[in-house]
Amino acid sequence: MPHHVDPFLLELFVIFLWAKISAELFEQFKLPAVLGEILAGIILGPYASRLVIPSDAVQSIAQVGAIFLLFSVGLETSPRTLVQNGRNAIMVAIAGIILPFFFGYGYMSWFQHVPVHQALFIAAALVATSVGITARVLGDMGVLQSRAAKIILGAAVFDDILGMLLLAVVVGIVSGGKLKYFQLAVLMAEALGFAFFMIFIAPRLIHRMRPGLRRMSSHNAPLIIALAICLGLSALAQKVGLAAIIGAFFAGLAFAEYSPEWQLEPRVHAITEFLAPFFFFTMGARLNLTVFNDKSVLVAAVVVSIIAILTKVIGCGAAVWKEGRATMWRVGVGMTPRGEVGLIVALIGLQMNMISQGNYAIVLAMTGVTTLFAPPVLRLLFRSEIHGSTDEDTIASAHLSTAGSEVGFAQENEAVR
Amino acid sequence: MPHHVDPFLLELFVIFLWAKISAELFEQFKLPAVLGEILAGIILGPYASRLVIPSDAVQSIAQVGAIFLLFSVGLETSPRTLVQNGRNAIMVAIAGIILPFFFGYGYMSWFQHVPVHQALFIAAALVATSVGITARVLGDMGVLQSRAAKIILGAAVFDDILGMLLLAVVVGIVSGGKLKYFQLAVLMAEALGFAFFMIFIAPRLIHRMRPGLRRMSSHNAPLIIALAICLGLSALAQKVGLAAIIGAFFAGLAFAEYSPEWQLEPRVHAITEFLAPFFFFTMGARLNLTVFNDKSVLVAAVVVSIIAILTKVIGCGAAVWKEGRATMWRVGVGMTPRGEVGLIVALIGLQMNMISQGNYAIVLAMTGVTTLFAPPVLRLLFRSEIHGSTDEDTIASAHLSTAGSEVGFAQENEAVR
Repeated sequence: MPHHVDPFLLELFVIFLWAKISAELFEQFKLPAVLGEILAGIILGPYASRLVIPSDAVQSIAQVGAIFLLFSVGLETSPRTLVQNGRNAIMVAIAGIILPFFFGYGYMSWFQHVPVHQALFIAAALVATSVGITARVLGDMGVLQSRAAKIILGAAVFDDILGMLLLAVVVGIVSGGKLKYFQLAVLMAEALGFAFFMIFIAPRLIHRMRPGLRRMSSHNAPLIIALAICLGLSALAQKVGLAAIIGAFFAGLAFAEYSPEWQLEPRVHAITEFLAPFFFFTMGARLNLTVFNDKSVLVAAVVVSIIAILTKVIGCGAAVWKEGRATMWRVGVGMTPRGEVGLIVALIGLQMNMISQGNYAIVLAMTGVTTLFAPPVLRLLFRSEIHGSTDEDTIASAHLSTAGSEVGFAQENEAVR
Repeated sequence: MPHHVDPFLLELFVIFLWAKISAELFEQFKLPAVLGEILAGIILGPYASRLVIPSDAVQSIAQVGAIFLLFSVGLETSPRTLVQNGRNAIMVAIAGIILPFFFGYGYMSWFQHVPVHQALFIAAALVATSVGITARVLGDMGVLQSRAAKIILGAAVFDDILGMLLLAVVVGIVSGGKLKYFQLAVLMAEALGFAFFMIFIAPRLIHRMRPGLRRMSSHNAPLIIALAICLGLSALAQKVGLAAIIGAFFAGLAFAEYSPEWQLEPRVHAITEFLAPFFFFTMGARLNLTVFNDKSVLVAAVVVSIIAILTKVIGCGAAVWKEGRATMWRVGVGMTPRGEVGLIVALIGLQMNMISQGNYAIVLAMTGVTTLFAPPVLRLLFRSEIHGSTDEDTIASAHLSTAGSEVGFAQENEAVR
């Protein structure tokens, strides 16, 4: 055997393979693939079977994976959707941020007596809706054109942006040491200015760049520029005390409008498809299972999960009370699943030594519970939409199926046979 | 400033940005982009300005970049092209491998008196044609349908496969310690068996996998499986004493036939587009410029470059003597540029401590010279194909321009204005 074999490639292969096998098994049972990839990390990782202990190199790749995850989320978040869905979506997003944040903070701070910084971090992780899972369930059912679905998708855009601003402020507060109101104000102004610039000014700059891009000789010039800006804003965000993923998210947002023209989305997705499993796997591998031996952690995980579900269902539902009871339930449950954003918030907290192993475990458990809770309940709530359609939502929507829903139905039919 | 800012993301950004700016400048002057990315590494790297010293994490990413480069090459190498172009292509490929290998080995061994292992490595780096550069020049001129172009593209496929087999044998010999004929025979049998399996049997297995793939619930199942097999074969190749890129190349080859159906190529390309600049940049950053103070290195670099050009022009040209003088020249010059494969061979040698800094510099210089030499000479040789077309090649071909050539012409027109 030659002496130069380093285990890096084997490690990459093993992680990718098991993350994807686990994801496929989860999907077969109609469970979210992301949870499968995390579970692979938990099982193979250093706190369980110890078969795979992610090396520094893999953790660096995982970090890049997180950036591409958020870049993809940004690319899919067209600011134009906001204008169409208007007031309802804003109300849902704001209610769905305020309630989980305050109840999460309150519980951790007053009942669990964790320090302010830890409570802030957990509260921030409770905020962000991962609409991907909801969108997929609704797509599979062919109800993406229903009123509730449109409100959810619109609200998720605001939710992403507001969640990022909140994270920016929390990271700023936490890394700045002592909490000062002036500093806080500066941070919020910074974050708001950054968001404003990326949403309203950056797309215009990109628009002006287009003739220049056509004169470039490089193949794939738009993709290259988008990647460079994504990396640059991530590094910049980190430099000014925000989280790197905030830069990546807003970079995606700035390019969202031009994504179809330049075919950015499928290509950035391919990169994410390769890199993200390393992120989710290492997320799982960092979960110290022994923390659950402490019963108070287990209790806190259950309570935080319940808070996470109730505050979204009640907050987001109440925001659309004018739309009738069916829509209230649908929107509330549809906004429930937390996903990659919450996980990344927890990971940043862990890396900054700002949250404990136990609190990291609580966030992971909360993400798992909310993500498992939403899909079956959503299928139940939207059932009437497909059979008969007796309520206030549109009838036609059941037949306006997307490409994704056709795949979903084909799979269901195959499962029945 | 928070304490947790690690420079990794900034490093990624700086490398990507400068590699791409340099590539774009090269392309503006119709020079190969790859050389621009390498030059960025040389200039910013630890042996010149010392502005960027690639970290371990970046070097790991560069390694993955090399794997995706070869995976892309494999995906583009359809074994079917071979059958169409037949005997001419085989002859060109074989002649274009034997001559550079033996003259390269002979010169390094007998005139430069380097050890057998070093000479073998440099000779192996002299072998592989990088047809990408030739294909782009011919595409830009709209002569991809000419007889010479078809022979070149066909020969390049054989060249890739044979070059990989040769590299496998060389790495095997070198890492096995003492050279034994029996061992050599086993290695060659292993490599040939591997190639045979990947070219003839693997595609059939993939064909049989297709119904299973359709039953998979994961999005992008074909891409995921292709990526997993690419990583797995890379790790396996390394494990059995071959180079990782050989596994990646043959993984690409196995999927080449299904690449259009599953849209693998554009998506794998996107991943390569992101990762490859880190590879080329670190290639450049490893070049110790001080070795050129030793005049014998400079002389050797010049001689090896001349050998690299002459052996391909004469060897490949002679192989098509029946086709007339114009085709002989075109094919000979078209097969001249060495690129990523030669570079990776040199890098493997350096990492295995099997070639010296000086010999690494020689290979880099040779790659640069051959890559700069071919495009202008090719344009000259194919000029008659466009204006008038007075020779034995087809007339129509000048107008059968590909999408690539249209872009090329559009750019030329813009440059004229």
